[in-house]
Amino acid sequence: MKQKRNDTMLCDYYELTMANGYFKHGWKDKITYFDVFFRRIPDRGGFAIAAGLDQIIDYIENLRFDDEDIDYLRKKGIFDEDFLTYLKSFSFHGDIWAIPEGTPIFPNEPILTVRAPAPEAQLIETFVLLTLNHQSLIATKANRVCRAADGRPVTEFGSRRAQGGDGAILGARAACIGGCVGTACTIAEQLYGTVAGGTMAHSWVQMFDSELEAFRAYCESYPNNPCLLVDTYNVLKSGIPNAIRVFDEMNIEDCAIRIDSGDITYLTKKARKMLDDAGHEKCRIVISNSLDEYIITDLLRQGAKIDAFGVGERLITAKSDPVFGGVYKLCAIEDETGAVVPKIKVSENAEKITTPHFKKVWRVYDKVTGKAHADLITVYDEVIDTTKPLTIFDPNHPWKKLTFDDYEIAELMVPVFRGGQCVMERRPDVAEIREYSRRQIDRLWDEMKRFEHPHLYYVDLSQKLWDIKQKLITDNFGEFQND
Amino acid sequence: MKQKRNDTMLCDYYELTMANGYFKHGWKDKITYFDVFFRRIPDRGGFAIAAGLDQIIDYIENLRFDDEDIDYLRKKGIFDEDFLTYLKSFSFHGDIWAIPEGTPIFPNEPILTVRAPAPEAQLIETFVLLTLNHQSLIATKANRVCRAADGRPVTEFGSRRAQGGDGAILGARAACIGGCVGTACTIAEQLYGTVAGGTMAHSWVQMFDSELEAFRAYCESYPNNPCLLVDTYNVLKSGIPNAIRVFDEMNIEDCAIRIDSGDITYLTKKARKMLDDAGHEKCRIVISNSLDEYIITDLLRQGAKIDAFGVGERLITAKSDPVFGGVYKLCAIEDETGAVVPKIKVSENAEKITTPHFKKVWRVYDKVTGKAHADLITVYDEVIDTTKPLTIFDPNHPWKKLTFDDYEIAELMVPVFRGGQCVMERRPDVAEIREYSRRQIDRLWDEMKRFEHPHLYYVDLSQKLWDIKQKLITDNFGEFQND
Repeated sequence: MKQKRNDTMLCDYYELTMANGYFKHGWKDKITYFDVFFRRIPDRGGFAIAAGLDQIIDYIENLRFDDEDIDYLRKKGIFDEDFLTYLKSFSFHGDIWAIPEGTPIFPNEPILTVRAPAPEAQLIETFVLLTLNHQSLIATKANRVCRAADGRPVTEFGSRRAQGGDGAILGARAACIGGCVGTACTIAEQLYGTVAGGTMAHSWVQMFDSELEAFRAYCESYPNNPCLLVDTYNVLKSGIPNAIRVFDEMNIEDCAIRIDSGDITYLTKKARKMLDDAGHEKCRIVISNSLDEYIITDLLRQGAKIDAFGVGERLITAKSDPVFGGVYKLCAIEDETGAVVPKIKVSENAEKITTPHFKKVWRVYDKVTGKAHADLITVYDEVIDTTKPLTIFDPNHPWKKLTFDDYEIAELMVPVFRGGQCVMERRPDVAEIREYSRRQIDRLWDEMKRFEHPHLYYVDLSQKLWDIKQKLITDNFGEFQND
Repeated sequence: MKQKRNDTMLCDYYELTMANGYFKHGWKDKITYFDVFFRRIPDRGGFAIAAGLDQIIDYIENLRFDDEDIDYLRKKGIFDEDFLTYLKSFSFHGDIWAIPEGTPIFPNEPILTVRAPAPEAQLIETFVLLTLNHQSLIATKANRVCRAADGRPVTEFGSRRAQGGDGAILGARAACIGGCVGTACTIAEQLYGTVAGGTMAHSWVQMFDSELEAFRAYCESYPNNPCLLVDTYNVLKSGIPNAIRVFDEMNIEDCAIRIDSGDITYLTKKARKMLDDAGHEKCRIVISNSLDEYIITDLLRQGAKIDAFGVGERLITAKSDPVFGGVYKLCAIEDETGAVVPKIKVSENAEKITTPHFKKVWRVYDKVTGKAHADLITVYDEVIDTTKPLTIFDPNHPWKKLTFDDYEIAELMVPVFRGGQCVMERRPDVAEIREYSRRQIDRLWDEMKRFEHPHLYYVDLSQKLWDIKQKLITDNFGEFQND
């Protein structure tokens, strides 16, 4: 069996059987358009955050089938030899547009659009989806946790409970895009520049004959801003007194304690008082223990004295809602003349009907407040005349209309690949994306940032796009509608 | 930034700071014992299934710090140069025992035990945990789904919703250990021999001018047992009639249809009748669409006509309970004389108190039925005289006793590493592990296999181990107990 992973082979098997089929059908160069979009915001939140594009760029640039891969496929016994030869020199020749990482995104709008020959567009489906789904899931969750922490730093602590190594590493990356200041995951810093930190486990304390000796040894090794874990035996009767004693012995002012169990509100209030009474007002209190946005909100509401959070399993797996349901759907093809022919998938589940055509997505901002009003999806060649008022309508209830007079618009998807070449001028690092994300979220109304029943943001279709969609639904579904 | 991932660096940062601290403290060769165990079975199930050991073996055998890794650590500015030099030739010199993959496992018993010098044992914590946690989570979930499917084949379909690439690939591996017959994940077959399969997406159907043309083109390419996706437009009025027409035109008997939306019970009953009436009794009906063990149970209870299942996001993320909470706890050290000194972590949360000491785990079987009665944890040097009756007791309610007369015992953990060398005689492949697992699960009482309120299996401590644990609790916690 093969030893090393080539991500080109991280595809669903049906992508290979379909690609082989397109190839045999003479559609090697048939131009197709696919959209990535999602249907539901995790945790019934007001918005999601796009993440993962940088890894998709690396993947697209490194697409290739090794001899070993071709041999493996040949042994499956169903692929044409011509197709296998084609795979030998396979690479991506298409165009990709995508919403930049860190941008707030909403259901039913394209997050990423691919225009490429059918076999190429089909083969990248799984990797593109899993990357956007995973990282957008964790960035979205991290942002919720950070909003709950209300300005206090949150560090990602969950590697050990992540769903695999990439879940830990890229999850740490996504968590930092969503707002975390750092991670316990060492390699994530090395690969993605997310600041790594951490101090001690209970095992450190247990290794010594006493907690006091353990704290002394630790502060001797790390006198610069040590963080002592105080709950191995008893927080208030042993941990805090021993920590204070060692901080005093060694004249350490910049320091912290971490509590990982027990009633956090009670313990932190007591701990704060003990530390302050001992003159350690600068000692920070760090909390970890199965935290999430709901528990953090509740602890702070109760007046728990917390300076920083470490958040593990419930962040790194997005435990409360661990699937980001992005899909990859054909929305158009080009005919022999190069004209774009819109395609639709109808369904008896109305919410599963896709929006056809090659499209653009626009964000409409109020010029006075700078806040985002709505997103508008248009056909790719539509022009919005911003000197005139803009009227939008709810695509499900077309009689619900809104008109904006004093507005500005920004196109959300940017060109990422053009003819197989990456055309992103620069690829921002995680800290830049986090800051960009923070500024974009500032442009959303506070009403969208509630955890419970947030304001529903408008994602509307232009009249032209809506008309095309209705016609395709009627054409494709009309004859079945008495079902 | 570094381009390539070295899994040795996939550690929590505190493992490096502690290892550096142990090193400075003169404990480079200090022998420590760590246990991996978990506290709660996901989904309130009756048992979990161990998985992931094979990847841990690869990891341990490849432990090394590259120059690039050392340079990165040096730049953090807190590691001693002596320690960094030590890391240059770092490898694993210890012993590891583990319960083989596929074995049913239970809370609070060691799944894996490490005996190694302190820095080595500490540094492998995160990778060992995340690997066992992830794969045991998915194997356990897959087994639930397969039990619900009641003998019908289940294929893993979830790569696109997995939490990262490893989540997809190793998740597919674990799903096959848990009972899935195959996966849509191509590379998982290439790397781990899990059979890859799949046929077409809606995009295939949309690409053609009509569904009929799409089905014809597909069956021309794949006349051998094709599976046609029949819900792109309308299952009963378009999909099934077109499928039957093409199967008839091409005289295809071995075939299948897949339905991915709509009311599965209703549609499969209608579809079965239409296929049978057309003489296609051999055509199988494959179902996919946000399935899990609960939905599958309900569909089958209603008499849905289903031959096979494709299960995606709810399996690959273990959506209903996506965290397997394995922990890694110091349980003993060796003193200067080589004597094993048990260590405990007490806690105000009683369930967080660890079981100290270097231990063995035994499974006690009824000799007549062959079924497993209980697991018994002993100190490493205890001998069980199977010629005499065996009495066990509930460690939380010691007055609850059980005595076995006609029993046999098997040690659960096997040696995996000895002095840094892998000593597993052979490493079974996924198909062998799945078959071993099936046989082991057969040895559990059916009462443990319910989804709701399964029988609680006994995991008890020997009298000797219980006494040691009680003494350590009293010694460490006695003075705080009036809290």
